[in-house]
Amino acid sequence: MGSLEGERSITGLAAKDPSGVLSPYTYTLRRTGPEDVYIKVLYCGICHTDIHQTRNHLGMSNYPMVPGHEVVGEVVEVGSSVSKFRLGDVVGVGCLVGCCRACRPCNSNIEQYCNKRIWSYNDVYVDGKPTQGGFASNMIVDQKFVVKIPEGLPAEQAAPLLCAGITVFSPLKTLGLDKPGVRCGILGLGGVGHMGVKMAKAMGHHVTVISSSDKKREEAMDHLGADEYLVSSDGEGMQAAADTLDYILDTVPVQHPLEPYLAMLRVDGKLILTGVIPAPMQFITPMLMLGRKSILGTFIGSMDETQEMLDFCEKKGLTSMIEVVKMDYVNTALERLEKNDVRYRFVVDVAGSELDS
Amino acid sequence: MGSLEGERSITGLAAKDPSGVLSPYTYTLRRTGPEDVYIKVLYCGICHTDIHQTRNHLGMSNYPMVPGHEVVGEVVEVGSSVSKFRLGDVVGVGCLVGCCRACRPCNSNIEQYCNKRIWSYNDVYVDGKPTQGGFASNMIVDQKFVVKIPEGLPAEQAAPLLCAGITVFSPLKTLGLDKPGVRCGILGLGGVGHMGVKMAKAMGHHVTVISSSDKKREEAMDHLGADEYLVSSDGEGMQAAADTLDYILDTVPVQHPLEPYLAMLRVDGKLILTGVIPAPMQFITPMLMLGRKSILGTFIGSMDETQEMLDFCEKKGLTSMIEVVKMDYVNTALERLEKNDVRYRFVVDVAGSELDS
Repeated sequence: MGSLEGERSITGLAAKDPSGVLSPYTYTLRRTGPEDVYIKVLYCGICHTDIHQTRNHLGMSNYPMVPGHEVVGEVVEVGSSVSKFRLGDVVGVGCLVGCCRACRPCNSNIEQYCNKRIWSYNDVYVDGKPTQGGFASNMIVDQKFVVKIPEGLPAEQAAPLLCAGITVFSPLKTLGLDKPGVRCGILGLGGVGHMGVKMAKAMGHHVTVISSSDKKREEAMDHLGADEYLVSSDGEGMQAAADTLDYILDTVPVQHPLEPYLAMLRVDGKLILTGVIPAPMQFITPMLMLGRKSILGTFIGSMDETQEMLDFCEKKGLTSMIEVVKMDYVNTALERLEKNDVRYRFVVDVAGSELDS
Repeated sequence: MGSLEGERSITGLAAKDPSGVLSPYTYTLRRTGPEDVYIKVLYCGICHTDIHQTRNHLGMSNYPMVPGHEVVGEVVEVGSSVSKFRLGDVVGVGCLVGCCRACRPCNSNIEQYCNKRIWSYNDVYVDGKPTQGGFASNMIVDQKFVVKIPEGLPAEQAAPLLCAGITVFSPLKTLGLDKPGVRCGILGLGGVGHMGVKMAKAMGHHVTVISSSDKKREEAMDHLGADEYLVSSDGEGMQAAADTLDYILDTVPVQHPLEPYLAMLRVDGKLILTGVIPAPMQFITPMLMLGRKSILGTFIGSMDETQEMLDFCEKKGLTSMIEVVKMDYVNTALERLEKNDVRYRFVVDVAGSELDS
């Protein structure tokens, strides 16, 4: 498993081409630098972005590619300048592993908006080598991009928080919506949406889930704790809900009309878009103007916010709803995720799996 | 000219049909109620909305219609409960003359977002009669919708502030952008845009005017005091300006692409739309997401903000650039405005004109 002195050879599951099928792949990780944390991966969540990336949906994929950016692991080695972490700590790694540390966003500790951000996988690290993600025995990550998993939070539960969880937490915090009494709408009940319901409820919000069908009513109301459930084709219900919400978290990852949801916002209401949608979106200006409404985009959260979010989840006893699978199930899991056939996130038990089977 | 006891007959210029041509029209105004201020109109600005309304561009016009919602006048009579104003005061009336006083926006003193707002003209007042605007000898307005024109502000200068001026001031104040050092972009150099440059400069902003051609460079830089001027087709210049602006005031009243301007915004930057655009607008989500940017609509400002804006303009010696015309020139002025042939606002000298010629 390598040493402090040199590179080490490890095994992960990589996509080798745009079929996106994952298979064993052996590669090297850099030696542990002064700022680095060497991690044994315990769990890794599966995010919709993993599908986009492994199948080259965004036209920017490089192979072989080890996906996975919701990583929980155990610290097995630390560099000489690492003071934040000790051997045995349970830690998390999310979407990013690097930034320029010199630009305006970096200087404001919102490094997720650094234009030179380095993604956890399918990117090139400062040493010129490809970055590889969490479906692997180990990762090596600069301590700035490592967070501590609070003791009260089960490791497998924490994994989806590192992407889906922070995607919800960061905009609510930034916009000052992290307070009781706020009226929330959740559009789309997948990985991010279900965390949206739970996080908003934990903040004391009144939560309305808006869905295209009645299918998820019971889940939303009984399992996730939503206060209301609205079917978007129910004209009367939508009309009655006009001008009632302070914000809507729009997690739908495909093109859809915005007007029905903008209409639900109160004055100063915010439509918060969390998903990359591969087609242009439309709106009409009076819809925004006559209620000082806004459409806002957001992208994960900073490392500081991620730590704060994890601590918040521990304090509130907030967990994600997950299905834990082994590594040999990853390809099936990706297929099921594509069909939205998971409640609500797959988490892979990496340490408990055979990696080179 | 009527009396306190009954309705009075007055003359204005009204559109009689969708040709939008204004001609003399005699109508009655209600008696002065306890909360009412009876005003002799001195000046009235001409706004682009007057064209839309008189020509039924929005499909909601009722005739005869006396337009005009940038009204400066002199108080000639006050109701028994009016304490804010005295005879002889120079006052202003803007886009609105009524609201419900019971809804959330009304209770928050942002009555411009009340869904039962009553427009200064082409609307129906609480007494069931049509509202009529400022191209007339007199108006009668509830004191809530009357502001005091500060003594240091010339009356004709103040008129465009009541719509164009407050349209700029209100979002900057609401968004906390009314402070020095902010980097501003102004898109479109008409009535609102030119006030945008002046107001932003008065707040200590660095102002870049973005225009489709080089034609207005001298005006923008030398007459209005902009710091930079960018032609939107100048790829190199636009590229160099990427990620540099805190906000862009988008005053263009026709459909246009948003991407080139969203790209100019910094992280947390805001594209502020001030104009009703009669066609859907488009954007792509990564453009917003990867910089936590937002698209915001705004609509004039509250009465409190309007008063604050007028006081700000007096303090800063901020004036609009106007062309003063007589009432017999209004139809020509509307035609010239439609061709954008005015620097930057027509103001009609109502009191100095023959009204029934």
